[in-house]
Amino acid sequence: MTNGIRRSKLHRGAGNRIVALIAFLTVAALHGAIAQSPQTISKKKFQFPNQIPAPANNPVTPARVELGKMLFFDPRLSGSNWISCATCHNPAMGWSDGLPTAIGNGMTTLKRATPTIVNTVFNELQMWDGRFHSLEEQAVGPMQAPGEMNSTMDDILSKLKSMPGYVEGFDRAYPGEGITKDTVAKAVASFERTIISQGAPFDAWVHGKNRAISPSAQRGFDLFTGKANCVACHSGPNFTDEGFHNIGLGGDDPGRFAKLPIKISKGAFKTPTLRDVALTAPYMHNGAYRTLEEVIDHYDRGGDDRSNLDPSIHPLGLSVLEKKDLLQFLTTLSGKQVAISLPRLPQ
Amino acid sequence: MTNGIRRSKLHRGAGNRIVALIAFLTVAALHGAIAQSPQTISKKKFQFPNQIPAPANNPVTPARVELGKMLFFDPRLSGSNWISCATCHNPAMGWSDGLPTAIGNGMTTLKRATPTIVNTVFNELQMWDGRFHSLEEQAVGPMQAPGEMNSTMDDILSKLKSMPGYVEGFDRAYPGEGITKDTVAKAVASFERTIISQGAPFDAWVHGKNRAISPSAQRGFDLFTGKANCVACHSGPNFTDEGFHNIGLGGDDPGRFAKLPIKISKGAFKTPTLRDVALTAPYMHNGAYRTLEEVIDHYDRGGDDRSNLDPSIHPLGLSVLEKKDLLQFLTTLSGKQVAISLPRLPQ
Repeated sequence: MTNGIRRSKLHRGAGNRIVALIAFLTVAALHGAIAQSPQTISKKKFQFPNQIPAPANNPVTPARVELGKMLFFDPRLSGSNWISCATCHNPAMGWSDGLPTAIGNGMTTLKRATPTIVNTVFNELQMWDGRFHSLEEQAVGPMQAPGEMNSTMDDILSKLKSMPGYVEGFDRAYPGEGITKDTVAKAVASFERTIISQGAPFDAWVHGKNRAISPSAQRGFDLFTGKANCVACHSGPNFTDEGFHNIGLGGDDPGRFAKLPIKISKGAFKTPTLRDVALTAPYMHNGAYRTLEEVIDHYDRGGDDRSNLDPSIHPLGLSVLEKKDLLQFLTTLSGKQVAISLPRLPQ
Repeated sequence: MTNGIRRSKLHRGAGNRIVALIAFLTVAALHGAIAQSPQTISKKKFQFPNQIPAPANNPVTPARVELGKMLFFDPRLSGSNWISCATCHNPAMGWSDGLPTAIGNGMTTLKRATPTIVNTVFNELQMWDGRFHSLEEQAVGPMQAPGEMNSTMDDILSKLKSMPGYVEGFDRAYPGEGITKDTVAKAVASFERTIISQGAPFDAWVHGKNRAISPSAQRGFDLFTGKANCVACHSGPNFTDEGFHNIGLGGDDPGRFAKLPIKISKGAFKTPTLRDVALTAPYMHNGAYRTLEEVIDHYDRGGDDRSNLDPSIHPLGLSVLEKKDLLQFLTTLSGKQVAISLPRLPQ
């Protein structure tokens, strides 16, 4: 646990300090609470802040969200004019693609799984290896990656400028700023800031509705915060410490090490949110597991490859019933379905 | 004009007789009306029937539409698990893909343009060459085409049967019928039957709101039904005679001839609806034209390749203003944006 905190500080970027503080306090508070009565003491620590974080130079406005949504769903932002952000971050599939690892331009299979964009607004660093420091920085990455959307910013900007619908949209969202890499990034990021998992049964329970989740799920929460100690990394309202951990999956992907070449980063990947986790199979950065049952089994046996294993990972000795309870708990993190209605894109 | 009618009978399948009758009467009525006062006499002929056609063994129900929508948006109906019906028939792009010709499995470019599925419920024959006789028959075509979604019905059915969400969905929509090729086809077709362009300014005008379309668009309608005689083929409320015509685009695609090997079919393609036409660029079966202006120019010069040209195609001698009026008229055929909210797909 203390390890987890130290590590998350080491790996942390220059993101929102308030969220960092909340995450820190949550983990610290949980640490003290676990031995006593986890389910009553720690429930409050899983409540989201009321404020959605956004950078000072890009506050969220309806015009920005609307424009960002258009861009997000527009396949013309790719070199082929066929792949949009939503192709892989598919709202119908938990804002991911349901694949073990992503498919990119030319339908080649990529090395890592598409992460959901649910709750990425709360992330301090983006991507499995944390290489982007903000949603703005991330948003224009895949568009220009040859293996993903395979476009260039020049091409994207000239396409957008040729469409009156977009010229008007940018003018409404960013008056006087024009259509630039910066405003494209800001608009997409603004839309992404609205993709938040809300209204999960777990949240109702946290807010005092004692029957909002089943007794089995409640036992699962006790295990999650106690015996199984999942909160060592999956902490706070977004169920992530914002850190990077090697959880013993093996393989030759350096993960965080490529960005931060210290031993602890080797094969370490960002702790993903567990919000909507039941909607985003398969699991892990490499899509190794098809089901949450397989994920729980992985942690129960303490991982597989021990070469640079995070010290918090060790065999858990969970019973069949305990595994079932943990699973039940995880399914309570699925938010209500939000109606995403598709935009009509400019011609 | 009489040519158009004769041909549409020759090429017609066993579709809905009532729609056929309406289309026939419309064309016939227009034929007589053009010389006199087209805009007052023929407006009524462009009103849709109140009833949405559906086969007796597959009436549209909410459960069927909901299930069909899930299937329509589910990329797991493709061999790659990455391409859904909606990838090419993208609601954000006028239910098409905005490409000159379609992109299929492996991101290879296909020979023909993706037709919109707007108002396909009114078609008697589906596809550019009319090779499918119903939406049910069409729906399962692309899924199994190696160049398109590249799946097999066995694979699709076993995937669907493995997901409890789909098992329930089929049970609600087709109680006792199970998950079969037939019910998959029927469900997708039921969803497609709801994709109808409605509330266009033109419709308001047809129903008596005289200012619903501009004076320029009204002049365009006069040209459409008069001097330019577009209604020779684009007739009736859905702006198609359900026939097949060689309009002089050239190229080596046999079109309807592959299905009906008579001379008149050579290089002939199905008359597409003009509903939502301003939303479905580029145009023609081969995506030859990027804009409606280019399409109007094509007809104005009487086509290019005259080898098997439809006799109704000839130079029109339109002025610049007349072309602009025609264009204005065509834009009045865009229906109101219908909110298509994405389903949450079963795991």
